[in-house]
Amino acid sequence: MNDKIFNVGVIGATGYAGTELVRLLTAHPFVKTEGVSSVSYEGKKISDIYPNLFGICDLTLEKQEDIIPRCAVVFACLPHGLSEPIAKLCVENNCFFIDLGADFRLHDEQDYKKWYGLHYSDPELHRSAVYSIPELHRQTVRSLQPKIIANPGCYPTSASLGLYPAISERIIKTSRILIDSKSGVTGAGRGLTQNTHYPDTNEAFSAYKPAIHRHTPEIEQTLSEIAHEKVSVTFVPHLLPVNRGIETTIYAELAQDTDVDKIIEIYTNYYRNEQFVRILPSGSCANIKNVRYSNYCDISIHIDRHTNTLIICSCIDNMVKGAAGQAIQNMNILLGLDECTALLSTPPSF
Amino acid sequence: MNDKIFNVGVIGATGYAGTELVRLLTAHPFVKTEGVSSVSYEGKKISDIYPNLFGICDLTLEKQEDIIPRCAVVFACLPHGLSEPIAKLCVENNCFFIDLGADFRLHDEQDYKKWYGLHYSDPELHRSAVYSIPELHRQTVRSLQPKIIANPGCYPTSASLGLYPAISERIIKTSRILIDSKSGVTGAGRGLTQNTHYPDTNEAFSAYKPAIHRHTPEIEQTLSEIAHEKVSVTFVPHLLPVNRGIETTIYAELAQDTDVDKIIEIYTNYYRNEQFVRILPSGSCANIKNVRYSNYCDISIHIDRHTNTLIICSCIDNMVKGAAGQAIQNMNILLGLDECTALLSTPPSF
Amino acid sequence: MNDKIFNVGVIGATGYAGTELVRLLTAHPFVKTEGVSSVSYEGKKISDIYPNLFGICDLTLEKQEDIIPRCAVVFACLPHGLSEPIAKLCVENNCFFIDLGADFRLHDEQDYKKWYGLHYSDPELHRSAVYSIPELHRQTVRSLQPKIIANPGCYPTSASLGLYPAISERIIKTSRILIDSKSGVTGAGRGLTQNTHYPDTNEAFSAYKPAIHRHTPEIEQTLSEIAHEKVSVTFVPHLLPVNRGIETTIYAELAQDTDVDKIIEIYTNYYRNEQFVRILPSGSCANIKNVRYSNYCDISIHIDRHTNTLIICSCIDNMVKGAAGQAIQNMNILLGLDECTALLSTPPSF
Amino acid sequence: MNDKIFNVGVIGATGYAGTELVRLLTAHPFVKTEGVSSVSYEGKKISDIYPNLFGICDLTLEKQEDIIPRCAVVFACLPHGLSEPIAKLCVENNCFFIDLGADFRLHDEQDYKKWYGLHYSDPELHRSAVYSIPELHRQTVRSLQPKIIANPGCYPTSASLGLYPAISERIIKTSRILIDSKSGVTGAGRGLTQNTHYPDTNEAFSAYKPAIHRHTPEIEQTLSEIAHEKVSVTFVPHLLPVNRGIETTIYAELAQDTDVDKIIEIYTNYYRNEQFVRILPSGSCANIKNVRYSNYCDISIHIDRHTNTLIICSCIDNMVKGAAGQAIQNMNILLGLDECTALLSTPPSF
Repeated sequence: MNDKIFNVGVIGATGYAGTELVRLLTAHPFVKTEGVSSVSYEGKKISDIYPNLFGICDLTLEKQEDIIPRCAVVFACLPHGLSEPIAKLCVENNCFFIDLGADFRLHDEQDYKKWYGLHYSDPELHRSAVYSIPELHRQTVRSLQPKIIANPGCYPTSASLGLYPAISERIIKTSRILIDSKSGVTGAGRGLTQNTHYPDTNEAFSAYKPAIHRHTPEIEQTLSEIAHEKVSVTFVPHLLPVNRGIETTIYAELAQDTDVDKIIEIYTNYYRNEQFVRILPSGSCANIKNVRYSNYCDISIHIDRHTNTLIICSCIDNMVKGAAGQAIQNMNILLGLDECTALLSTPPSF
Repeated sequence: MNDKIFNVGVIGATGYAGTELVRLLTAHPFVKTEGVSSVSYEGKKISDIYPNLFGICDLTLEKQEDIIPRCAVVFACLPHGLSEPIAKLCVENNCFFIDLGADFRLHDEQDYKKWYGLHYSDPELHRSAVYSIPELHRQTVRSLQPKIIANPGCYPTSASLGLYPAISERIIKTSRILIDSKSGVTGAGRGLTQNTHYPDTNEAFSAYKPAIHRHTPEIEQTLSEIAHEKVSVTFVPHLLPVNRGIETTIYAELAQDTDVDKIIEIYTNYYRNEQFVRILPSGSCANIKNVRYSNYCDISIHIDRHTNTLIICSCIDNMVKGAAGQAIQNMNILLGLDECTALLSTPPSF
Repeated sequence: MNDKIFNVGVIGATGYAGTELVRLLTAHPFVKTEGVSSVSYEGKKISDIYPNLFGICDLTLEKQEDIIPRCAVVFACLPHGLSEPIAKLCVENNCFFIDLGADFRLHDEQDYKKWYGLHYSDPELHRSAVYSIPELHRQTVRSLQPKIIANPGCYPTSASLGLYPAISERIIKTSRILIDSKSGVTGAGRGLTQNTHYPDTNEAFSAYKPAIHRHTPEIEQTLSEIAHEKVSVTFVPHLLPVNRGIETTIYAELAQDTDVDKIIEIYTNYYRNEQFVRILPSGSCANIKNVRYSNYCDISIHIDRHTNTLIICSCIDNMVKGAAGQAIQNMNILLGLDECTALLSTPPSF
Repeated sequence: MNDKIFNVGVIGATGYAGTELVRLLTAHPFVKTEGVSSVSYEGKKISDIYPNLFGICDLTLEKQEDIIPRCAVVFACLPHGLSEPIAKLCVENNCFFIDLGADFRLHDEQDYKKWYGLHYSDPELHRSAVYSIPELHRQTVRSLQPKIIANPGCYPTSASLGLYPAISERIIKTSRILIDSKSGVTGAGRGLTQNTHYPDTNEAFSAYKPAIHRHTPEIEQTLSEIAHEKVSVTFVPHLLPVNRGIETTIYAELAQDTDVDKIIEIYTNYYRNEQFVRILPSGSCANIKNVRYSNYCDISIHIDRHTNTLIICSCIDNMVKGAAGQAIQNMNILLGLDECTALLSTPPSF
């Protein structure tokens, strides 16, 4: 095993993805969290903001530029539009940069302009980044050894893992894929909004941004890559009154006359060497409660015979496999560590 | 106005739909809840089982056969397979029978056999029943004056109201309608199951019975009636960790080149005289929190231009418009009362 | 019965107490909500802010000074320190003023200064106000016919109703009364705070402001009035992850050798003519679920023999009996209407 | 460090404490979960019952008597009255027995008879057991090397850790200690009851078994031991609509003229070498959200000057420090391992 310790930094450590990263990293035997930054809380201890960390991680929040030079890996958990200069600084410091934000996810600058309203000031930097869902892009990361990793969005992770074998094996037609996702409230971040005020969210449920959510082009980019052709999807997210977890129910027309056990077998084969993807036995439905606080993605497969429809249910913890856990998984690959390091905690039963 | 008081009875009064009926009827000025029955709790007071009713409705739970002869209207809130003999008894007693269970909902006995595993012992009785979502079937009820009303299921109510104008006006193709519903836990009833044990349900979310839920043929029956042709749908319900409310997100391919405002206008026109259907302005998403504890159905309309898909979000309170409220609405029609009597309570903000 | 219609206004209508007032008033047959005001949302419709009111109450939010002259009764739901000028204006317009805020609750200006940091600019105005929990102060309101009513706080309502007979009848010693309250999140208002952000509140629970909450002097004022001597209490509120409801568990040393049934009998007698106070039978514990969305206060009585302690559990809906419902109850008294008008809705079972 | 692997068995593995043990043990480097038993599910895989364990722990549930001979340590998570024969069998097999149930907790058989309605069939066996909250009883365990450990109840753990320094240092009078606890629903176990059915628990809150809960004598036993005199307490538990966590608010009269900072200093000193007890800084309130899914106990200290009352808030995760985690802590002590092994996971922020 490895006995080198790598220094890592977390920029935007007081956001939800940031604090989750800090938490998960406390269990990593080969990593030291060397520095944490926050614009809003600079000078305070992170455990003043998150008392769950009291006595466990009491680091003082610094400026981001003070952290980067001391680190081998830097994670950024920032709103879109803020990661480019940090990426540049990391590259200059010969430090890996893993971006949990959206800035390096879309290959096509036009998509980025259309959906985020911004352009790239350094397109070359963006071309050097690798978007990585490890189960799909692990080999690319290993062979290219990029300095910049674009860590995927939460919805795209659940949708892409759910659709990967079905599209690859042409089990479904790609012409009318419908993706109906439901996310826990941490997906909306730590920032205060009326919509996430407790009495407004509790005992409530609705769609939001139907067909106009920014994760749409990211999903389509990955599915098109799998299909080797342009794939369009209808994507409708909903806000679920739970803290954590995404359930994505996907509908597509079957392209073949097949049965559910055969498809489950194909899925099981596809993910046979994957620690974190579990294909459920026939008859079970993927439930967010079984993956919470873990890096697992549970997938269940169902068929509606009378309409010839494949139904895929895919569940992840939006803060772990959908953000901080997947980022650590990518870091482990970059650093040549066992990919599962610090990510094997068993999901609790309740 | 009417000043006659009608005696009504509630059979199965300690189930969730039953107790909700009892609650709503306490506000009805022209009705006296004359008797309540329960097999499990016969001889106890209903307020012993539901202490919220303490001092308000302290009726003793009786045998069902003791209640029917004293009533002008009888509601039954029973598992399927138990309503037929009660219906017969009501007809013999010249008393209206409103069934909140499933026994009289499906016109085709073959469907009932296939989905519920039972057959009709008195098919004539079933033919005399009228299935009534008042917004769609009010005139039939008025003209036929049936003795038996089949009160619709909760999911079918939300789906049918959501799709009615779109199918009627041929806004959508009916070939691939996908209905993704999410229901609060009261939809599963008062009976104890592991699945509805608090720690199993709280912070959890999953689909259940995907494409095999018994409300599928009921939805298809109503949509086929609207379309004047056989309509098949894919229907996937999910269990939502809230007490009340159904949100149904419906996907269908647009049949016309139209825009969202035009469709909203059509919907608004369709429901212009309906007290309980609210078509939301463009940009809003229907949310269960705005209809809880009320008989309203909120509908929002969205379009995904790049896949040519119509998205309809339809929200009701599963226990009110999806059960007890709609049953009272049907009773009001039968009795010639103002249809909204006892149903106008304003939904709370939180 | 009365057939006059009174115009009422709600100032601060977009706060939680304000919107609950607007909702409850939609059911009042003798009142017309003539105007609603909001500083933050002036010019918008109230149903834009609270879509549950869409189609039911679409009043435009106005300036408060434009409303008062058109009203017979004005309610204010404002943070402390803002009600005095409104009260003055109401008195000048010969209009009843019911303050749901704290400004007129404390008789002793020194208390107000100590706990709220402000002084009275018009002490005379304050002396003319009557603090009214109707079950305790109804006769005072009727005999004095005050222009200004100080509507009690939510915690003081639950604690005072719970302790009233025990103190009056000297069942307990008043020397060490401990009041442990738990409130739903609407008690913290509609304003956004980190503490009431969904993921921070959900699955969380803690005390807040132990022994320093501003409702302490208000509780002591009422208990001292009942006891005819100065009573001090220890009061610790907790934030409960539910939308509505307060449960208050009160501990005091028994002053007499008595038993629980005897005390329940005394309580039942005390409240025998009260519509809204329910003394539960021996063995039951008051539960907020049985009073939600209603004006009821449920009280259960328990004894710990081995420590000679009386335990009282008192539950209300903080937004109804603890705010808007009690305000309407006070209005009904002022206007000579049946005190229960618009307040008799049955609490739901779930 | 140790490199020996100990075989352990979990009896009653499909109850909540049992499954939590299984989960926590998956992270223990020196332990192998050799067998799991269940009467209800014998022959099934534990991951069929708890799909969160799918692919992680797929052990088949056996008969308890088949497991004991293969184990160095056996945990039992059973209703009271069932542990005695298992303990006997373990002692005969020279295997450590750690009982998460109540059978070995009370030293005085009379108390056991009074509160649990049963007597001891082998009193000698009971005398050989050691009740162990490690922070209080670690030295006893080490010196006696008992074969049987009585793992404490959840409420007694939170109350005893909260009161230990205050009683030891005579900061408070022990004559009127009031303990107001609130527990998450997992505390009521996995068995189905109406009271823990989702719609009955959600948005609800009440006390239960006030002053008659079976943890009362256990709390008094520990406090009396600390005080070296008989201590009686009033104990009132409440059911909290969250999955996990206990918050205990304790009230006692101050015995000294002191201030809050001084008491915090004493508490901090008392627990200075304890990994799992965190004394919060002045002004913070202990919150269950900061200890969930961890073995920590957070304690905050408050004073009500005007009534001379000490207020202690003590929070644990009822399933970890209140059950399975503390059991592993006790096992680690028995086996001579680092006491914190497998228990250091950082509590999540949400």
